[in-house]
Amino acid sequence: MNASAPLCLTMGSPEGIGAEITLKSWLARKHSDVPVFFSLDVPERLRKEAKQLGLPVPIEEIATLSQAGEVFERALPVLPLSAGKSGARAVLESIEGAVSFALKGEAAGLVTNPVNKANISQAGVEFYGHTGYIAELCKTAGKAVMMLSCEALRVVPASVHIPLREVSTFLSQEWLEYVGRTVDTHLRERIGISDPVVMFTGLNPHAGEEGVLGNEEIKIIKPAVESLRLDGVDARGPFAADSLFHVEARKTYDAVVCMYHDQALIPFKSLAFYEGVNVTLGLPIVRVSPDHGTAEGIKGKGIARPDSLLAALRTAVSLR
Amino acid sequence: MNASAPLCLTMGSPEGIGAEITLKSWLARKHSDVPVFFSLDVPERLRKEAKQLGLPVPIEEIATLSQAGEVFERALPVLPLSAGKSGARAVLESIEGAVSFALKGEAAGLVTNPVNKANISQAGVEFYGHTGYIAELCKTAGKAVMMLSCEALRVVPASVHIPLREVSTFLSQEWLEYVGRTVDTHLRERIGISDPVVMFTGLNPHAGEEGVLGNEEIKIIKPAVESLRLDGVDARGPFAADSLFHVEARKTYDAVVCMYHDQALIPFKSLAFYEGVNVTLGLPIVRVSPDHGTAEGIKGKGIARPDSLLAALRTAVSLR
Repeated sequence: MNASAPLCLTMGSPEGIGAEITLKSWLARKHSDVPVFFSLDVPERLRKEAKQLGLPVPIEEIATLSQAGEVFERALPVLPLSAGKSGARAVLESIEGAVSFALKGEAAGLVTNPVNKANISQAGVEFYGHTGYIAELCKTAGKAVMMLSCEALRVVPASVHIPLREVSTFLSQEWLEYVGRTVDTHLRERIGISDPVVMFTGLNPHAGEEGVLGNEEIKIIKPAVESLRLDGVDARGPFAADSLFHVEARKTYDAVVCMYHDQALIPFKSLAFYEGVNVTLGLPIVRVSPDHGTAEGIKGKGIARPDSLLAALRTAVSLR
Repeated sequence: MNASAPLCLTMGSPEGIGAEITLKSWLARKHSDVPVFFSLDVPERLRKEAKQLGLPVPIEEIATLSQAGEVFERALPVLPLSAGKSGARAVLESIEGAVSFALKGEAAGLVTNPVNKANISQAGVEFYGHTGYIAELCKTAGKAVMMLSCEALRVVPASVHIPLREVSTFLSQEWLEYVGRTVDTHLRERIGISDPVVMFTGLNPHAGEEGVLGNEEIKIIKPAVESLRLDGVDARGPFAADSLFHVEARKTYDAVVCMYHDQALIPFKSLAFYEGVNVTLGLPIVRVSPDHGTAEGIKGKGIARPDSLLAALRTAVSLR
């Protein structure tokens, strides 16, 4: 990536808190280290939200990305979306533009504000999810892997938004090996850890107790770990998930591959409810997002916390 | 229960660390608040372990439970098991005796050292688990509910030692209602909380997102919560499990009923790896155990920590 280039921040769904946390993140640059970013958005929308929320954020339109750095000191740089675009079409154009800038190296990476999947689908666009959409734009469909990251912990759910009873059927040795390799590559190449350790959880209580409480460990997870080890990945496990997340255990690894959503998200959100970020692995570009949704229930109230977006911006700029 | 009576501590499986943590718990009485307890054990075994581990613990045999309080100051009071009993038979006699003393009110409750289920079964005894065995002795088979308790959190897994893929089939509205009522009763009657709040997790990611990611919330959990509320239990949920365990969320309830083992044990052990305890609800007696196994791998090394057993003893004496 081009480290001197600015980060591109997408607008997210306008019914959510994206504008508010964008404005607050720019304001935070006075008090803390915020990397240079620009919004790919509708400038008038941001001006209106700043006024309504009473946030003293001047909005300055830029014509090229190279202006972002200079403008960032005095105003929030906004690269305007095509005139007349609004709603779901604007949300998507913001994502498409950000991916394109990142692929060309003109942006150091993209940080995405939360979107409302249902509202985009209802607008008549085929949209099965933010990450999947970005992976398709990068021509790496089916290759994206989600990592949740905070100071205390990195977790990677090997399955995400599927019913719990379908998890066992979804998991395969092949997919777990792909996830493990992708995590190892990210830790080495994007973060710069020379000998990363990647733990794998078991699926069942006590990691199955040698098959007594389930056999996915024996049939799928252990073979994947062994195959990864032969490939030079320092994969370990499967371990009982409940023993992997206390403070002493967390010192023994760089990331944990978990088998399903809650197994990864419960320890993660217990430790980092406000400042966690979501990093997409397996893409040719850097993509990070805050670890929360559109939070439409608190939209316009002025109480949205920019912590996670700020952490996302800082994480994005730190990745190679 | 008889609050002036001593607690009865079972021996646990002799291949584990039970003797070591028993001896260390007695030693801890000098530095901290340890309630009076006696061991139902083989005195010679404890003397030998104390010598091998270099722990300065005098062992004094008692003939009646009423002697425990006076002896406790100067020595570890031990009520000897029947002469000649050893191995699995001794382990079971210790449990059976402890339950009997508690049922009669001669012991304030029982605290159980960990057992090795497989070794007991191999000795030719039908033994499907510690808690189940105790529930049968109390004539409340099938009624026992496990609560994990520490200062930060109380969690109750509604299913425990079954493969993850069987959880959905195992759960029923009827069982969840029973669990919710049992938890409510425990919080009110044994702990003394006048208006307890009991949260329920969802089974699926995001608590199923209104049926998009699974329907157990709609079919089983929500009806159970609603029925409990009609019964006067302040049950709430189902909520996304990953949002229930950070520090602010934990202030809003007294206990969480989780749908399966890891959903309860991951947040619990992340917060309290050494000092958590396991309280059995739904019995006519107080039964608490440390939240760890026999730990045979560290037996005899002198490094076993008595923290959880001490917490179990303190919890047991605090329950009404």
